[in-house]
Amino acid sequence: MSMKLLKPEQFGLKREVEYGSPEQNAAVQQIVAAVKAEGDAALLRFTEQFDRVKLSSEQLRVTDEEIQAAYAQVDEAFLLAIREAADNIRRFHEKQLRNSWMDLAEDGTMLGQIMRPLKRVGVYVPGGKAAYPSSVLMNVIPAQVAGVPEIVMVTPPATGGTEGIDPYILVAAAEAGVKELYRVGGAQAVAALAYGTESIAPVDKICGPGNIYVALAKRSVYGVVDIDSIAGPSEIVVLADDSADPAYIAADLLSQAEHDEMASAILVTASEKLAQAVIAEVDSQLASLPRYEIAKASIEQYGAVLLVASLEEGIKVVNQLAPEHLEIMTVDPMSQLSYIENAGAIFLGPYSSEPVGDYFAGPNHIIPTNGTARFSSPVNVDDFLKKSSMILYSKQALLANGHKIMTLARHEGLEGHARAIEVRLNKEGQ
Amino acid sequence: MSMKLLKPEQFGLKREVEYGSPEQNAAVQQIVAAVKAEGDAALLRFTEQFDRVKLSSEQLRVTDEEIQAAYAQVDEAFLLAIREAADNIRRFHEKQLRNSWMDLAEDGTMLGQIMRPLKRVGVYVPGGKAAYPSSVLMNVIPAQVAGVPEIVMVTPPATGGTEGIDPYILVAAAEAGVKELYRVGGAQAVAALAYGTESIAPVDKICGPGNIYVALAKRSVYGVVDIDSIAGPSEIVVLADDSADPAYIAADLLSQAEHDEMASAILVTASEKLAQAVIAEVDSQLASLPRYEIAKASIEQYGAVLLVASLEEGIKVVNQLAPEHLEIMTVDPMSQLSYIENAGAIFLGPYSSEPVGDYFAGPNHIIPTNGTARFSSPVNVDDFLKKSSMILYSKQALLANGHKIMTLARHEGLEGHARAIEVRLNKEGQ
Repeated sequence: MSMKLLKPEQFGLKREVEYGSPEQNAAVQQIVAAVKAEGDAALLRFTEQFDRVKLSSEQLRVTDEEIQAAYAQVDEAFLLAIREAADNIRRFHEKQLRNSWMDLAEDGTMLGQIMRPLKRVGVYVPGGKAAYPSSVLMNVIPAQVAGVPEIVMVTPPATGGTEGIDPYILVAAAEAGVKELYRVGGAQAVAALAYGTESIAPVDKICGPGNIYVALAKRSVYGVVDIDSIAGPSEIVVLADDSADPAYIAADLLSQAEHDEMASAILVTASEKLAQAVIAEVDSQLASLPRYEIAKASIEQYGAVLLVASLEEGIKVVNQLAPEHLEIMTVDPMSQLSYIENAGAIFLGPYSSEPVGDYFAGPNHIIPTNGTARFSSPVNVDDFLKKSSMILYSKQALLANGHKIMTLARHEGLEGHARAIEVRLNKEGQ
Repeated sequence: MSMKLLKPEQFGLKREVEYGSPEQNAAVQQIVAAVKAEGDAALLRFTEQFDRVKLSSEQLRVTDEEIQAAYAQVDEAFLLAIREAADNIRRFHEKQLRNSWMDLAEDGTMLGQIMRPLKRVGVYVPGGKAAYPSSVLMNVIPAQVAGVPEIVMVTPPATGGTEGIDPYILVAAAEAGVKELYRVGGAQAVAALAYGTESIAPVDKICGPGNIYVALAKRSVYGVVDIDSIAGPSEIVVLADDSADPAYIAADLLSQAEHDEMASAILVTASEKLAQAVIAEVDSQLASLPRYEIAKASIEQYGAVLLVASLEEGIKVVNQLAPEHLEIMTVDPMSQLSYIENAGAIFLGPYSSEPVGDYFAGPNHIIPTNGTARFSSPVNVDDFLKKSSMILYSKQALLANGHKIMTLARHEGLEGHARAIEVRLNKEGQ
């Protein structure tokens, strides 16, 4: 079965956010409560139960020797590529940094906004095949650029007896600057980061992807600590005209589809010729893809070619879909940019294939999914900063404005607020 | 009973976040589902049931005539004061605005971050005595400064038959620039903003305080739309030395305590003399406060004077408490500022009484509570902006870096990603 060719009104992309079953929620609540109450003892018990690895408290932390050993196991081409990627990611995120500022008024008043990094951040890295070195960089580097002094990583030990963690993950963590790593995963790791145990000090924010138990645990500790948003399945929308190369578009659609059976790959075009050519290319390229079954399921269920009347209508459709990734392959992609209201990352022109951004260019690859680009943003330095307001009111300003403040406070029935001003005005002889 | 004088280690401020009873959660789920399914019909039914006001769809929206009539009902001093406050708030928040930016590399690559306002924001304003004109300004103006083109306000009709909304709220909304107001409240209003009805178009973000039903409804629609954080009871910590005026400190502590029986007012000082003087002043000022019962309950349950060994220890205690509001009344408050890691708003010196910031100075008065200043920020313009990454990769850059990207993709087992690069390199003859 090939990609469906549809009018936009025939297509609706709605995938429900996963909230877990009542049983999964209950299991997570119980794990979180146990780690909160018992600390390391519960952490080690759950690690034995779920990962089938028996550890002592002393074995939780990954040693420097293990990290050095990991370097010996990764190949040189990988190391060079990930170092250059890390540099690019660091350089891009450094441009997001902001200064604290102050505004000094003529009456002596100073108002300001102070930017400070969070003190301690925990990054969750899933185990097994879901462990991506690139995601380690994308989670850790923005925190590091923000100035977070303590960045902690947790990742499950390999299931079933060995304590080994993928050396590529260890090297990516070290390259990103992580100095504190623990071999613990699942809801128990999230609980340890939120509440702390004898071995793991609590953090201010937890980020990084995980399975449904990790996601539910993060949701349940939100408020005790900050969390990042829970990622849904990945999406790409390509907006293209006749000038685009169908082989490029098909390859980019498939690179998204191979992620996950629930991933979504959509072409929006006013050209029926291009639409048909892309459908044929997808069929042909799909056949030889190693992750054929996954990509096929994604294309069949959530893939589509949406035929629109014009580029203008195409832009409207894009804004409604609010995709995680948008590629614009038109004669002059920059001239469409201003009209794109909702898209997490926008790739312009024939050479800006999505994997360029997934791995290397510099912008973050953790991007809002499932239409949430309407109101949220790719991971960035701001996610690891907090702001404080600063108010230094002068005597002159208080004398000039005190009565107005009292008027507003008394209108709201807050006499105590008014008197906090009045006690000062009285003392100053007004 | 006076304020307790304690060592910091004798004091722990922990108030649990309210998640509602199972019955309250079930009621909210049912209301939200009904409004999602039935639209206006459910909205009007719940308004009749909970507010005891029978409205038609046409009566939901507040008319321009009603807003004009409201202006005739508010007194001149209030109007002048709130206009000046709105100007100050607008001026402060305008300084938070940020530009989109682009970085142009020598190889033709352009990377950037595009800042855009959310398109449509809903502000909830509670009814009755909990309706504060100042909070209308603090929620609406940052959205307006961010450039949000559609700002909608919802507020319950007065309970029990009349359709009237407090004229002061209507005037504050109009002064802040709201042009679309609906007389609807509770969980049903939140559901209408999230999913839309025949009369109310859906929004991208819902903010503003409300009762437990409103809070639970906001939590349940999070993900469909963005929400602001759920505010806890208010807090003030005053850090002071012998140079401070005990009457000022006592008045400021009481202005916080009068908010809510769960509000918390704490003095941190190394001076036992100041501590005793403030305790005596609180007793004396409390006696004549109109909201005596509330302030007394707050002071008794959550108030304290924490006696520390030094200003340095005091700063540590402040950072542990991570208060919503911090006042520093010392000989040279600016010299402590750098050491304050966790505080939502910092008031410096004798004339920076908290009500100055609550009503007038310009910084936002919606500030993280319950220790969350460790990782979150006062409401600000960023809360109403979203970022998109922009990637325009040049042919030259792809030829230079394509193989590194393929190395990283293949390491992660994502051959489709590698091929999206390869198809381009092949075509370009590499």
